[in-house]
Amino acid sequence: MNEVLAELTKVLEERKQKGEPDSSYVASLHHKGLNKILEKVGEEATETIIAAKDAERSGRTDLLVCETADLWFHSMVMLSHLGSGPQEVLDELARRFNLSGLEEKASRLDKK
Amino acid sequence: MNEVLAELTKVLEERKQKGEPDSSYVASLHHKGLNKILEKVGEEATETIIAAKDAERSGRTDLLVCETADLWFHSMVMLSHLGSGPQEVLDELARRFNLSGLEEKASRLDKK
Amino acid sequence: MNEVLAELTKVLEERKQKGEPDSSYVASLHHKGLNKILEKVGEEATETIIAAKDAERSGRTDLLVCETADLWFHSMVMLSHLGSGPQEVLDELARRFNLSGLEEKASRLDKK
Amino acid sequence: MNEVLAELTKVLEERKQKGEPDSSYVASLHHKGLNKILEKVGEEATETIIAAKDAERSGRTDLLVCETADLWFHSMVMLSHLGSGPQEVLDELARRFNLSGLEEKASRLDKK
Repeated sequence: MNEVLAELTKVLEERKQKGEPDSSYVASLHHKGLNKILEKVGEEATETIIAAKDAERSGRTDLLVCETADLWFHSMVMLSHLGSGPQEVLDELARRFNLSGLEEKASRLDKK
Repeated sequence: MNEVLAELTKVLEERKQKGEPDSSYVASLHHKGLNKILEKVGEEATETIIAAKDAERSGRTDLLVCETADLWFHSMVMLSHLGSGPQEVLDELARRFNLSGLEEKASRLDKK
Repeated sequence: MNEVLAELTKVLEERKQKGEPDSSYVASLHHKGLNKILEKVGEEATETIIAAKDAERSGRTDLLVCETADLWFHSMVMLSHLGSGPQEVLDELARRFNLSGLEEKASRLDKK
Repeated sequence: MNEVLAELTKVLEERKQKGEPDSSYVASLHHKGLNKILEKVGEEATETIIAAKDAERSGRTDLLVCETADLWFHSMVMLSHLGSGPQEVLDELARRFNLSGLEEKASRLDKK
């Protein structure tokens, strides 16, 4: 998997395990539960859409990139909360588009 | 960048360039314009949230993974439509979480 | 209740009862189930937000009014599907804002 | 128009006019601008969808009614911010469903 997504997954899992709501935003989200995490996914999707309309007008994409990062980040927390992760999402995308990432994964699975 | 996201970006750009709405879903989205693309982002965010509530109940995440893939895919089409892409989003995530992916990118930039 | 909302509620309940998916959009939504209805609520919320951004720019609100009507309509179908309706929503708004609509309702309840 | 929606519209317009962000939530929303109002519309749509999934499971609709009230309330603030209001939405619904509310409105317009 992508080095950034792989590292981020590791960070997210560590913070989930620690379970110290005060010290970590991620632990706090897991502590508050799925509904709170999904509210954040919906909020960030809305902010992404608003930022895209503003980017269409201004020609600047910096805020849109930040909102999309928020959206992807919170959807990774959601996947983690339910026992899945970004690798499954990337595998699904690779499968749909017939990308070689899937072959690599298949060869990884072969080796197990 | 992640091999899957990098390859998918390439596929999405090729289909965007071709501009044959009939033959490609991606070209058709670009042809219909930003509002149509954002409607799909909102739709897929909603379907992701519903699938997460169903996954909470059933313990199965396969549909959730598919909906999240739809959400990420349509947000990549959105970024591409506005002249950005997933690399910028991953850089933003790496920067926030102080991940080494950023150092790698910095060293790539140094070599240019 | 508002004559329009009251009449619309009656129409929606009649179409729900009939249960002929082919002949009525409302019956078809109830037949497809809650997830389909909620997908429509999410879709229409997204289209309302996009239309509001376009209205901000153009100064024209006709499309925004149509999208908001779609949003309210589908949220009424959602309430009906789960055994509630717009009267409960209006009562809640009256209660929060200390509106006389609530007193009228209280006096209606007294007469029962 | 519905007595509750009509009264609420009056309250919302008064608070908008006053423009004292500290003393009124509605004035504060108008002061922060359209994007903030639309973020709230998106947030409340998400919370409505989550509450509907929970209502499906529990059979209780009280929280769903509150979230739908939040959604309708914030969409009324949005309409007001852009120079429209719930009457236009009700007229659109009456027109679509061929309800007598529209005839009443037509007769009101005749008298002007």
